[in-house]
Amino acid sequence: MPPGQKKYFEDFAPEFEYKYSVPGLTNSEIKKFALQYDPQRFHLDEDEAARTHFGKLVASGFQTQLHCFRPFCKDILLNSYSVGAPGIDSLKWHRPWYPGETLEVVVNLQSKRLSSKRKDRGYLNFVMQAVVNDVLTLTMAWAVIMLVRDGSKD
Amino acid sequence: MPPGQKKYFEDFAPEFEYKYSVPGLTNSEIKKFALQYDPQRFHLDEDEAARTHFGKLVASGFQTQLHCFRPFCKDILLNSYSVGAPGIDSLKWHRPWYPGETLEVVVNLQSKRLSSKRKDRGYLNFVMQAVVNDVLTLTMAWAVIMLVRDGSKD
Repeated sequence: MPPGQKKYFEDFAPEFEYKYSVPGLTNSEIKKFALQYDPQRFHLDEDEAARTHFGKLVASGFQTQLHCFRPFCKDILLNSYSVGAPGIDSLKWHRPWYPGETLEVVVNLQSKRLSSKRKDRGYLNFVMQAVVNDVLTLTMAWAVIMLVRDGSKD
Repeated sequence: MPPGQKKYFEDFAPEFEYKYSVPGLTNSEIKKFALQYDPQRFHLDEDEAARTHFGKLVASGFQTQLHCFRPFCKDILLNSYSVGAPGIDSLKWHRPWYPGETLEVVVNLQSKRLSSKRKDRGYLNFVMQAVVNDVLTLTMAWAVIMLVRDGSKD
């Protein structure tokens, strides 16, 4: 997308909504991630996982978060003048993400405001919801810092 | 560690504190993670990053979070009867994590309470702080669900 078409703060309307699907993970993908970052038994070993209340292997919540975030990053943030994020306001794992389950994700703009300190940027407060067969699986609320159209370029 | 020595909910005293260092990342490690999960220009390309307010390549905040979490997971959670976490209450990226910077991390127990619904478990509310040369870089607050000693085994 040419630079002129990238979105600024002003281009995100209150009714902004972005929907996408996230393909299910294999057992192998779940275990590979867990081994690297979150080696708890219910993410690493089918037999151990079967003995927990999860009943079978489940993805690390961090892996769920990353797989939900990635398409939004690629499709929305990379086509905008985002300059980062100050953090995550809230992340909820309502249920585990089991192997093979497709996540249906929707991201809405909850609110937006100009920065009080720096006139060249504003905050977009997004809420992401991911469901599996209509059952809520993950919600995440966070802010993205976005340049305004006529601010000094970052 | 033999099962008998693994920690239950009761074994986490209010004064619990765990400190560790997280080795700095290379540019290559930052770019590899970004390519997979968070392909924003300031995580992917030195020249592009130099043109942003970050001034140089910075790690994805998610990568910072994972590298801070991993040692706590390995040393504390794997030696306890943790059965997962309901989410992240708050995650703040106070400043970016630049290549080569060692993070000094401390995790404290902020509060704990028994579950009102299930007698076999309780919630441990942890706060993690990571600093680079005494400058606050990341804070994360989250709860871990932990079995009690005499509850039914998970």
